[in-house]
Amino acid sequence: MKAHRAPLRVAILGFGNVGSSVARLLLAAAGGELRLTHIFNRAVARKRADWVPAGVIWTESIEDVLHSEADVVVELAGGLNPAGAWVRQALAAGKSVVTANKKLIAAEGVELEALAAAKGAHLLYGAAVAGGVPVIPGLTQGLAGDALYRIEGILNGTCNFILSSMERGADFGPTLAEAQRLGYAEADPTEDVDGFDARAKLAILARLALCAMAPVEKIACRSIRPLTAVDFTYAHELGATIRQVARAEIVPDGKLLALASPMLVPSNSPLAWSRGTENMVVVSGRYGGDVVFSGHGAGGNPTAVAVVSDLLGIAHGSRPVGLGSSPVAVSSDLLLRHYIRLVVRDRPGIVAAVAGALARQGINIDAILQKPGYPVDALPFVVTVEPCVCSALQAALVEAAAFDFMAAPPLDLPIL
Amino acid sequence: MKAHRAPLRVAILGFGNVGSSVARLLLAAAGGELRLTHIFNRAVARKRADWVPAGVIWTESIEDVLHSEADVVVELAGGLNPAGAWVRQALAAGKSVVTANKKLIAAEGVELEALAAAKGAHLLYGAAVAGGVPVIPGLTQGLAGDALYRIEGILNGTCNFILSSMERGADFGPTLAEAQRLGYAEADPTEDVDGFDARAKLAILARLALCAMAPVEKIACRSIRPLTAVDFTYAHELGATIRQVARAEIVPDGKLLALASPMLVPSNSPLAWSRGTENMVVVSGRYGGDVVFSGHGAGGNPTAVAVVSDLLGIAHGSRPVGLGSSPVAVSSDLLLRHYIRLVVRDRPGIVAAVAGALARQGINIDAILQKPGYPVDALPFVVTVEPCVCSALQAALVEAAAFDFMAAPPLDLPIL
Repeated sequence: MKAHRAPLRVAILGFGNVGSSVARLLLAAAGGELRLTHIFNRAVARKRADWVPAGVIWTESIEDVLHSEADVVVELAGGLNPAGAWVRQALAAGKSVVTANKKLIAAEGVELEALAAAKGAHLLYGAAVAGGVPVIPGLTQGLAGDALYRIEGILNGTCNFILSSMERGADFGPTLAEAQRLGYAEADPTEDVDGFDARAKLAILARLALCAMAPVEKIACRSIRPLTAVDFTYAHELGATIRQVARAEIVPDGKLLALASPMLVPSNSPLAWSRGTENMVVVSGRYGGDVVFSGHGAGGNPTAVAVVSDLLGIAHGSRPVGLGSSPVAVSSDLLLRHYIRLVVRDRPGIVAAVAGALARQGINIDAILQKPGYPVDALPFVVTVEPCVCSALQAALVEAAAFDFMAAPPLDLPIL
Repeated sequence: MKAHRAPLRVAILGFGNVGSSVARLLLAAAGGELRLTHIFNRAVARKRADWVPAGVIWTESIEDVLHSEADVVVELAGGLNPAGAWVRQALAAGKSVVTANKKLIAAEGVELEALAAAKGAHLLYGAAVAGGVPVIPGLTQGLAGDALYRIEGILNGTCNFILSSMERGADFGPTLAEAQRLGYAEADPTEDVDGFDARAKLAILARLALCAMAPVEKIACRSIRPLTAVDFTYAHELGATIRQVARAEIVPDGKLLALASPMLVPSNSPLAWSRGTENMVVVSGRYGGDVVFSGHGAGGNPTAVAVVSDLLGIAHGSRPVGLGSSPVAVSSDLLLRHYIRLVVRDRPGIVAAVAGALARQGINIDAILQKPGYPVDALPFVVTVEPCVCSALQAALVEAAAFDFMAAPPLDLPIL
């Protein structure tokens, strides 16, 4: 099924780590179907590389690209601005766009796809979720025939690196520092560790897999910062470990229950297998059951694989199936068991007080765990509770947090 | 990206378990893009189902389908004949074909794709490998930009059910009988347990992922029948378990090393996670690293998901990327460590004799394991050897098999 047509002319916006990987793969791609024509970057002179063919135009003017004969613009600048404006201008000019920009697609994907369709252009973003793991083609092509109802994913490699390292006994602070030293975390790690990156990717997957258009800011996300080594000790005691999980589910009334948060995952579940910066997505369908995708979610080369695969798809005239989507109401009130870790100044009556706060919200205690060997003025213990909605639990924990014996704010984690 | 065109008219050939699941999903598919027009089966009268709309034509004449206005023929009869003739006739008549027939695609996929291309028709077979797990769209769309060099897969659910059950201490015979009782194994289990099914799927994946056209009968396959409970005991001792693995790798001289065989897989590797009838594929790329796909490989509904996804792809005008493929030389001489299980009538000098046979082929022993508690006249022990090619090991084992102390034929398993 070889395409016999002129090569697809490709302009790359952003020549950093991913951009240069894309250029290398594109130049190496067999079949002569792709031709690199432009590289755009600020202060482009310092980017010039001798392995790029002489005919490629290096420019720091976006207009050069927009007014060129490039067929496709590969947007790798990231963020909403000015990348969003460039993507809109390229589509408006009838150029197709391939992007790795999850923030932009989560926020404006629907409008941008409509613009692309109106112009007869393609908008592909396989690299926006899980980098080199072909989750988006898997969903939109391979599972289009199923009725998918749930997604659970490890979508942020930085969090996964930190949490799977903390499993071995380290605390959050030093592990984050190590991740920064290795280049797995940004100097400002907020987007990653506080869950914003994962929820943007979850919003994209919810639209593609569950046909549910959810405004990204309506999806609750919780930070992994409050986790300590003791949480992994107790999780292990419960036959589980801790991962940042992005989870979305369509419930019978059509509502989307969605949350990106650290969660306890059973040690024998696929989500617990992921190590380091790996990404993983488990998709559940009414007919096909659970399907798991995993691999390298980030890094120059894996991301470039997704970008170049999208480019080849365009070169071959491939079109994603796209099942359409509708706006939905979003809630974080998943009905799940919870792990609650309390750190107290030990004295009699603590369990009774905590149990009372939970009972007033109608929440049943499942188990109480306390391991020996901790100081009595900062004694961690854990309560697990039967399935309850997050909002009720939050109300109970607000009450509990005010008890005078609390030595630290309570931490609760959903249990999968 | 909704298609605004007449619904795709679909004829189903073969109305068994998968066929009726396809019909149900197709009738339930949103968007009105698919319309079931014909159901073909031998002795079709006994197949009639009241949930099928009145307008659908039930027929036992293939000519009715071939001369109808159906746009797509879904071939679910299986096997080379007469299914192959029907597929060729349908393509020749300009109809697209969606099939789950791995045997046919492994044997004649290249010719059938050429015929489809010549007629401007589609030939899709996402259901032929790993059923409901979207490995084929993942490879052909999502990983087209990588340079893939290796595939390792658990591609046969029957073998995986048997081996993951034997892990718990059972022997092959009773486990096969249990699999047959549960409907996971055929009355004649040859295709599955002797590896023919897995190698057909491996041939298809080698062509799509590695661009390597390998005649299916040139790919070596080995049975899981000689395995016994003791092999799982020793595998466990070695930090591993046993799975039927289909493995293909392109080596620098362009040769394809391919084998479908029971193998020792490390307990912490993705391949060891698969349980029951699950399928799993690990694809390795030069740029993207390892990507894992897993899920339900067989059964009516998961297979139907793959078929209906292919139908929706055709309805939306989607085309697989397809990177082309070239004929390659095939060998089973993978350079791997091996596990050798010997059953002997115990007497002095056995280890020296076996070590001598291995040494004469230049094979180094890595470890010798012998667990207590077995009878001296049928004493199992295990030798592991350093990486060697299968053909040298076979020569050593032919010599060893002739030793008078051998109580059973030696068994060797590659170690991944």
